[in-house]
Amino acid sequence: MKTMVIRNIRRTDAALVKRLGALGVATVHEAYGRLGLMKPYLRPVWAGGEAAGTAVTVLVHPGDNWMIHVAVEQCKPGDILVVGCSADNSDGMFGDLLATSLMARGVTGLVIDAGVRDAKSLREMGFPVWSNAISAKGTVKATLGAVNVPVVCAGVNVLPGDAVIADDDGVVVIGRKDAADVLTKGEKRHADEAGKRKQLAAGMLGLDMYNMREPLAKAGLVYLDEPDSD
Amino acid sequence: MKTMVIRNIRRTDAALVKRLGALGVATVHEAYGRLGLMKPYLRPVWAGGEAAGTAVTVLVHPGDNWMIHVAVEQCKPGDILVVGCSADNSDGMFGDLLATSLMARGVTGLVIDAGVRDAKSLREMGFPVWSNAISAKGTVKATLGAVNVPVVCAGVNVLPGDAVIADDDGVVVIGRKDAADVLTKGEKRHADEAGKRKQLAAGMLGLDMYNMREPLAKAGLVYLDEPDSD
Amino acid sequence: MKTMVIRNIRRTDAALVKRLGALGVATVHEAYGRLGLMKPYLRPVWAGGEAAGTAVTVLVHPGDNWMIHVAVEQCKPGDILVVGCSADNSDGMFGDLLATSLMARGVTGLVIDAGVRDAKSLREMGFPVWSNAISAKGTVKATLGAVNVPVVCAGVNVLPGDAVIADDDGVVVIGRKDAADVLTKGEKRHADEAGKRKQLAAGMLGLDMYNMREPLAKAGLVYLDEPDSD
Amino acid sequence: MKTMVIRNIRRTDAALVKRLGALGVATVHEAYGRLGLMKPYLRPVWAGGEAAGTAVTVLVHPGDNWMIHVAVEQCKPGDILVVGCSADNSDGMFGDLLATSLMARGVTGLVIDAGVRDAKSLREMGFPVWSNAISAKGTVKATLGAVNVPVVCAGVNVLPGDAVIADDDGVVVIGRKDAADVLTKGEKRHADEAGKRKQLAAGMLGLDMYNMREPLAKAGLVYLDEPDSD
Amino acid sequence: MKTMVIRNIRRTDAALVKRLGALGVATVHEAYGRLGLMKPYLRPVWAGGEAAGTAVTVLVHPGDNWMIHVAVEQCKPGDILVVGCSADNSDGMFGDLLATSLMARGVTGLVIDAGVRDAKSLREMGFPVWSNAISAKGTVKATLGAVNVPVVCAGVNVLPGDAVIADDDGVVVIGRKDAADVLTKGEKRHADEAGKRKQLAAGMLGLDMYNMREPLAKAGLVYLDEPDSD
Amino acid sequence: MKTMVIRNIRRTDAALVKRLGALGVATVHEAYGRLGLMKPYLRPVWAGGEAAGTAVTVLVHPGDNWMIHVAVEQCKPGDILVVGCSADNSDGMFGDLLATSLMARGVTGLVIDAGVRDAKSLREMGFPVWSNAISAKGTVKATLGAVNVPVVCAGVNVLPGDAVIADDDGVVVIGRKDAADVLTKGEKRHADEAGKRKQLAAGMLGLDMYNMREPLAKAGLVYLDEPDSD
Repeated sequence: MKTMVIRNIRRTDAALVKRLGALGVATVHEAYGRLGLMKPYLRPVWAGGEAAGTAVTVLVHPGDNWMIHVAVEQCKPGDILVVGCSADNSDGMFGDLLATSLMARGVTGLVIDAGVRDAKSLREMGFPVWSNAISAKGTVKATLGAVNVPVVCAGVNVLPGDAVIADDDGVVVIGRKDAADVLTKGEKRHADEAGKRKQLAAGMLGLDMYNMREPLAKAGLVYLDEPDSD
Repeated sequence: MKTMVIRNIRRTDAALVKRLGALGVATVHEAYGRLGLMKPYLRPVWAGGEAAGTAVTVLVHPGDNWMIHVAVEQCKPGDILVVGCSADNSDGMFGDLLATSLMARGVTGLVIDAGVRDAKSLREMGFPVWSNAISAKGTVKATLGAVNVPVVCAGVNVLPGDAVIADDDGVVVIGRKDAADVLTKGEKRHADEAGKRKQLAAGMLGLDMYNMREPLAKAGLVYLDEPDSD
Repeated sequence: MKTMVIRNIRRTDAALVKRLGALGVATVHEAYGRLGLMKPYLRPVWAGGEAAGTAVTVLVHPGDNWMIHVAVEQCKPGDILVVGCSADNSDGMFGDLLATSLMARGVTGLVIDAGVRDAKSLREMGFPVWSNAISAKGTVKATLGAVNVPVVCAGVNVLPGDAVIADDDGVVVIGRKDAADVLTKGEKRHADEAGKRKQLAAGMLGLDMYNMREPLAKAGLVYLDEPDSD
Repeated sequence: MKTMVIRNIRRTDAALVKRLGALGVATVHEAYGRLGLMKPYLRPVWAGGEAAGTAVTVLVHPGDNWMIHVAVEQCKPGDILVVGCSADNSDGMFGDLLATSLMARGVTGLVIDAGVRDAKSLREMGFPVWSNAISAKGTVKATLGAVNVPVVCAGVNVLPGDAVIADDDGVVVIGRKDAADVLTKGEKRHADEAGKRKQLAAGMLGLDMYNMREPLAKAGLVYLDEPDSD
Repeated sequence: MKTMVIRNIRRTDAALVKRLGALGVATVHEAYGRLGLMKPYLRPVWAGGEAAGTAVTVLVHPGDNWMIHVAVEQCKPGDILVVGCSADNSDGMFGDLLATSLMARGVTGLVIDAGVRDAKSLREMGFPVWSNAISAKGTVKATLGAVNVPVVCAGVNVLPGDAVIADDDGVVVIGRKDAADVLTKGEKRHADEAGKRKQLAAGMLGLDMYNMREPLAKAGLVYLDEPDSD
Repeated sequence: MKTMVIRNIRRTDAALVKRLGALGVATVHEAYGRLGLMKPYLRPVWAGGEAAGTAVTVLVHPGDNWMIHVAVEQCKPGDILVVGCSADNSDGMFGDLLATSLMARGVTGLVIDAGVRDAKSLREMGFPVWSNAISAKGTVKATLGAVNVPVVCAGVNVLPGDAVIADDDGVVVIGRKDAADVLTKGEKRHADEAGKRKQLAAGMLGLDMYNMREPLAKAGLVYLDEPDSD
């Protein structure tokens, strides 16, 4: 087992992360070439929460949240904690005490491929969490894992310092070196969408706006009227 | 693959659909002899949304939403878009731009056996959606499907023009020719329930209201007191 | 099949139940030695609901809610109805009429390893329900089960009269004879947490508060700095 | 509920069905334009079983197998029994006694969106079954369904008399009027595959055999060598 | 946590267990009033294995198999080890070394609501196992559970000494005091089935053998011929 | 989207891979500090198959197997093809023609986080495959992915050239630079197990062999006799 804590990780530039967060998960994911999206079984504990931050990563084992306590110390303002687990587990590894601690350090949210508890308090505290379950199941503190090593969380390989954007649509992870490029493409995409939205609201068809009629016909699409007989 | 679009479908009468919608999913489903209900894994994207409409049907393939763009053009005011997929898929095939387009055409909602994105915007726009997932996962536009052919969506075979009623309890589909009969039975059922609710609130037991005591005894039910020993 | 109804069950003391309810599910579950928690697939129908009560238990069969009607008569003020099913089933066995009846009898909530319907009405009525699904699927009244026998519900064996506490974190069941002891431990735990929360909010680390540094080092945890090369 | 039995259904021509069966599920599904395939959660109870037949359809309800007994009488040699259920259910609705009865009538197999039991006996009897579960869970005989009405089974709408082909790859359903056309396309496809298999075994690349290099380049695929640094 | 080992448990009579095993899971489950069956997600690691024995029960926690080692010492010839877990977990808690140890003590099989590994060796050794997964995932030995306390395993509450019967159809548990009665009913049922099988093989219909025609008609079943038009 | 093919990847030494394969998945996974194991939903298409090889990695999208055809050309003798998908998908992306092609190139197996078809042929050809489903569902060839980039497959991040070991217990991935070290530890572990197996078969208890009695007592385990009363 990798039983280590890596300190002083390199983080994605905070200003980039903030602007990526403003774009939202769907736009960033598209701008990233449709990569980096965690599986949709990871859901927000309360609807409407949004978070953007740099990843501090944790590897834990089923039923054991010891390393999350270790990881708190490595967090700085603007970080988001990302917890991967070595096997499927829905135990409640995180609750309002840990959230209090993370908020005190300026952490912007939690992304965990396990369960959390104190759901009501998390909502009331305004601390945004994405988890695979809500469960009061208690955990032990017996087995070492690791902090700030690469972890797979909900199907995505996350490196320490990666940019993490999360909202009601899910969680997307952008490599530190890709953040600037993704931001450029995402902001362009975002700007384009405003115009499209206006046209569509006015009744223009996507078929025409995206020039789809010709490729559709070429691909073999035919239009028929429903026969008369009932 | 059926690569066609059927135009000018016959639709269930709009007045019937509206009245069916007022009854709600549970009542309509019961009035339909407990048929037509989609599987409960299809959930509303936001709680409290309600929709009633005539089905414009779409058949898509995993990871590809091209045909949804094609289907928009076939929609008329009072329609509801029903999307079936040829295999299990949770990709985010639909978002706020398509919702804008459908609202511009008077469509009352979306029922899709796949994922959707822009969940927050859909809620803010008040556009009701029932889907199998919320996911930002982007899709391509490469493979033809069909519009207004029969599609199986969440376990129900839906024909173009069928009446579709959806609320927090799920989605029910009524065949065009069955709508009038189901409405009659449903409205009777609805009227009966008001009286029952009053009696139950006053403390009357369902056992007595539904005359269950005799059939229960006949079926062999016995009543015992808990023994004293602890 | 056990086709019987047990009357006059012994119930956990109401005052104990009330105070257990005030502690919440996570605290009670921990105070119970991390036992008694139902599986997290059981979810509240509406967020924010809370219930504490003494169990009236029901055993039903897939697609059949007859015994729930029978069980209503056995409920007293302060009870909570707990329904186990002999096989996996998500049919809508319970709706607003049964909820009206239970509220009329002073029942505090429903815990059911099956589906429920009329989700919107249940929320509006303020009747809290934990179920494995929301589904309008209608059921029949044809097969006997049992009332107030031990039932397994969402992974927990529940005896009639057990204390049941439920909130957004799930559902926990405490044996009648264990309730006083669990309450003592839970209230102590609860008192301790307030102090911890304050310290953590002030920036103290859990690592220090719980004296974890030494056992972590002993277990072999090492701290490294990220290497310079990028 | 549709509580009826339809007698004297029209069946797909037996000779066509037999030749479709010889092609196997994957080839028939492709020849049908990639339609008609049941969801892969339906699995053979024993590996290696194969069946082809004309559908006698049954609609049952959770936990109740009464209509299967009714359906047996409607079966003729060369039929395959297809059972859809009005909600998700894995109860053991079918076992060796029913299989004995079906074999006595010349039925070639069972396709059921529910569970079956007596798995060992079914294998020893050589009666092929595709189900969603193996479960000893007993069922009741209390609620009517229907025989030889359209049923949705594992995501496919099946009409009485449709051709059903099943093997280790799953189950595919072909509409009665489409069977001849699908057979022609399938047999052509099958003949082509033999030649391809020989070429591929000799080392020819699919990239060349299917002329993919040009479209791949056009779509933007680039080839790079791994950089030297390790 | 209940951290105890109960020694010298009372066991169901060995001769009864053996005869129950000869009947098979489906027959025993029916004779028990359709009770006691574990959920069908518990599957045999290798097809064809059969086991009957008296339960030695174990409560473990996710990712930790320490208590299984403790439980081995409590096993006697004719026992079957039954492992419940305090939360969903599929880790490989059991492999060929533990199986060697159990076989040396005359244990007849393992039933575990968690994962196992060394699947090939278990098959080659002929040691029958029913588990919720096959997984090589390693576990730790850090947390106490309990041995020979009541445990819920795959939806059934199992007491130490209960009779456990397992085969390809699943696992059924019979209370110690119910075993004799269930055996009597099961052997009668088994004797009846031989005669029924012969009649059904000769072409008699279940409809007639079970006298279903009259209750079906009474319930409202109608027979119609398919209309002529195609 | 990363639309590239990386050629001339560095591979784990073939002799190391072969010896790792001889140890089996469970031993290698333990020797790797309980890391590298894919999730247990990935199952062998036929029991008893075993494979060891160096990873050629492929990233595909739901319903599209184009890149698998591209990847074949990059495979050398001793490779194993590892396919990750950008979203959950069970379509039959691989069948006997592709298997023929891979066998012609000396590839030792396929690991795919999607479905495969021609299950019977794969078994008859002796080509071992680990997949998330068996499904005849056809796929298209329309969207580019990548070959020999890092891919997440069933929860593990796989780099091109990594060692991959697969058997009935699942699939484990070892980093190229870790292979020698893991082999040393694994072979030591394997040697130790033979001796343990002999002792356990002779009746020695794991409790004694692993010296567990003292730590169990220290952790608080108590032994009690079952009380006399029945």
